[in-house]
Amino acid sequence: MKYSNKILNTPSSFIRNILKVTDAPDVISFAGGLPNPISFPIDDLQKSINHAIEENGAKLFQYSTTEGYLPLRQYIVEKYKKSHGLDFDPEDILITTGSQQALQLISQVLINKGEGIVMEEPGYLGAIQAFTLAEPSFYTVVLDEDGLNVEQLEDTLKNNRNIKFIYTVPNFHNPTGITYSRENREAVYEVVKNYDVVLIEDDPYGDLRWHGEQLPYIGAGRLENSVLLGSFSKVVTPGMRLGYIVTKNKELMHHINTAKQATDLHTNIFSQIIIHDYLVNNDLDSHVKKIINLYQTQANTMLNAMAKYFPSTVKYTKPDGGMFIWVTLEEGTSALDFFYKAMEEKVAFVPGDPFYTSKTNVNTLRLNYTNSSPEMIEEGIKRLGKILYSLTSEKQIV
Amino acid sequence: MKYSNKILNTPSSFIRNILKVTDAPDVISFAGGLPNPISFPIDDLQKSINHAIEENGAKLFQYSTTEGYLPLRQYIVEKYKKSHGLDFDPEDILITTGSQQALQLISQVLINKGEGIVMEEPGYLGAIQAFTLAEPSFYTVVLDEDGLNVEQLEDTLKNNRNIKFIYTVPNFHNPTGITYSRENREAVYEVVKNYDVVLIEDDPYGDLRWHGEQLPYIGAGRLENSVLLGSFSKVVTPGMRLGYIVTKNKELMHHINTAKQATDLHTNIFSQIIIHDYLVNNDLDSHVKKIINLYQTQANTMLNAMAKYFPSTVKYTKPDGGMFIWVTLEEGTSALDFFYKAMEEKVAFVPGDPFYTSKTNVNTLRLNYTNSSPEMIEEGIKRLGKILYSLTSEKQIV
Repeated sequence: MKYSNKILNTPSSFIRNILKVTDAPDVISFAGGLPNPISFPIDDLQKSINHAIEENGAKLFQYSTTEGYLPLRQYIVEKYKKSHGLDFDPEDILITTGSQQALQLISQVLINKGEGIVMEEPGYLGAIQAFTLAEPSFYTVVLDEDGLNVEQLEDTLKNNRNIKFIYTVPNFHNPTGITYSRENREAVYEVVKNYDVVLIEDDPYGDLRWHGEQLPYIGAGRLENSVLLGSFSKVVTPGMRLGYIVTKNKELMHHINTAKQATDLHTNIFSQIIIHDYLVNNDLDSHVKKIINLYQTQANTMLNAMAKYFPSTVKYTKPDGGMFIWVTLEEGTSALDFFYKAMEEKVAFVPGDPFYTSKTNVNTLRLNYTNSSPEMIEEGIKRLGKILYSLTSEKQIV
Repeated sequence: MKYSNKILNTPSSFIRNILKVTDAPDVISFAGGLPNPISFPIDDLQKSINHAIEENGAKLFQYSTTEGYLPLRQYIVEKYKKSHGLDFDPEDILITTGSQQALQLISQVLINKGEGIVMEEPGYLGAIQAFTLAEPSFYTVVLDEDGLNVEQLEDTLKNNRNIKFIYTVPNFHNPTGITYSRENREAVYEVVKNYDVVLIEDDPYGDLRWHGEQLPYIGAGRLENSVLLGSFSKVVTPGMRLGYIVTKNKELMHHINTAKQATDLHTNIFSQIIIHDYLVNNDLDSHVKKIINLYQTQANTMLNAMAKYFPSTVKYTKPDGGMFIWVTLEEGTSALDFFYKAMEEKVAFVPGDPFYTSKTNVNTLRLNYTNSSPEMIEEGIKRLGKILYSLTSEKQIV
């Protein structure tokens, strides 16, 4: 039997595959991208479940509309009004089965085989996976410390008129933890506005900031072909698979709605009504504050341990929020080799390779800190440091 | 901005669009395909929710595996062992976000642009929608009263070597209510086994039988490239969007898993654990028996009313189970014209057009009986009958 070219070209997630190895109970894992389960508001969700069933009865269990539960879309409208002063209407919002589905829908709607997508380099591997099913050409633009390399972005757009959209994660980027600076956002906007392309801002981590001020979006609210993606996975629960697409482009939204119908009819209404009940009957800001405090402590523990145990030739990002730190090893060191050595010492992380659309055997890797205790973080980084010293030319000084 | 050809060719669901009109409270609607909400076991689900949270805690709210919740997959294995004597393993099963997603995943995995899909004519419009996103060539095989037209199926497979799969709904077919006979299943099997094609048996309604004996599947359990699709939407709740794919073809399952990762990572685990708890702690057979009794009464009410109020030139199917009756008007009568006239009299149904991949202005239509009371059914059919008499040459005799 022959399979489609698009599925043969789609990478099976390196992370999902290694999670099967790294999930052993004696492994210290910095590999996943999971929220800390102690951050799930289980008691309040239980109350909302009871309340939602009492109030809505059979409606929770019946088929529902493709665009999603109207009160939840209204809540999202108000959220952006309050947090960013943005003016959206409920019809600008479609609820998706997690943010991952948003990536799949948008690429299906926009991409004919061979048409272009601009990806950050490195970029989110789930997006690379989802987009690959649409058989695009990937164009990469380097992610600098303060955001997209604007010059390279402009060259890429100018020289490749088949580009349909640009995919960005401007806040606490996955995998690097980088946040685009205010100046970089403005510069990206000034370039993108001159081209007939869609700008996607995928923002699952934006609320998880513990340092610096909240920044405006690049295109949301001012660019005609702007798409903003959000998610409840990192602030309430990922298990319910609830994300959303925001765009004021009505034609684009119409096509996304058709693709959504064809893909799964509509998002789980049972979960939509429950999460809406939770959101309107609890103080989300104070809940998110608890998550932020937790993650900040974990991030600082990891950064301090890296300063203490890693050779000084190893570079890494210092995130202002979110879930990830990006590590760059000495030129020529293979992160994949490092991964195998680390697994022997029962420590896991994700080597950089799957975050690139074409590079392999890179010297970069992703560390997640949200799902380990400070003690585990200290111990895990210590073990990684030992291996790194044995891999580098520097003498071990610890 | 330009959109992809695949989305421009994908029909927006006629049903979902007309539901917006037909959902007005004073309309008698036979248009939807919704289970009757009085069939949802709300109290027992509430108990299972509480129990599942108590037993599993944070696990309900965290990310989970792409293939789905293992105990739920084990339950499905046991179900088919018990009901059909089939031997599946949990790794033969992947939980999907409703059966609709199964259609999307399989077509993405198998179809390169232009490759062939055999569809029943008429066929399930949700499948036509999902498959269109993969840009296939559709080949139709007429659905006779006892199943697929075997001669036409053989000719189609023989003459079109680009065909990758055959899509069937062998039990209480949507839209026609037809069930493939035992002899037809055997004859279809004898043809299909000689070709390198996948046979999909989509079976969301199979448990809802009130007449005749359960029949064996066509290919499941004996055809190498067999795919069986199931759903909890019609026997428990559609709101949770829980369906599943069954295949013993490991390579096919591997690719479906990758497509599922790329599409939405995994199915809502909160709902998976709850439905599993419900299934193992309740007597599903006795619950389904209640649904069957309800639908049988509704179907009989509709059939009796049609015998009483419809002109004798109007033909229709007499289902042994499921949710639909298929009506064939006199040659030359437009079901779409009939629809508009019926809407003036506040009665809705689905004209046949969207169930064909290429025909339009057909003389067929679909009636759903599961979501109206016997009184509403009698009244609605009476109004339709009046219009039909005015449309046909026959003199009204009522």
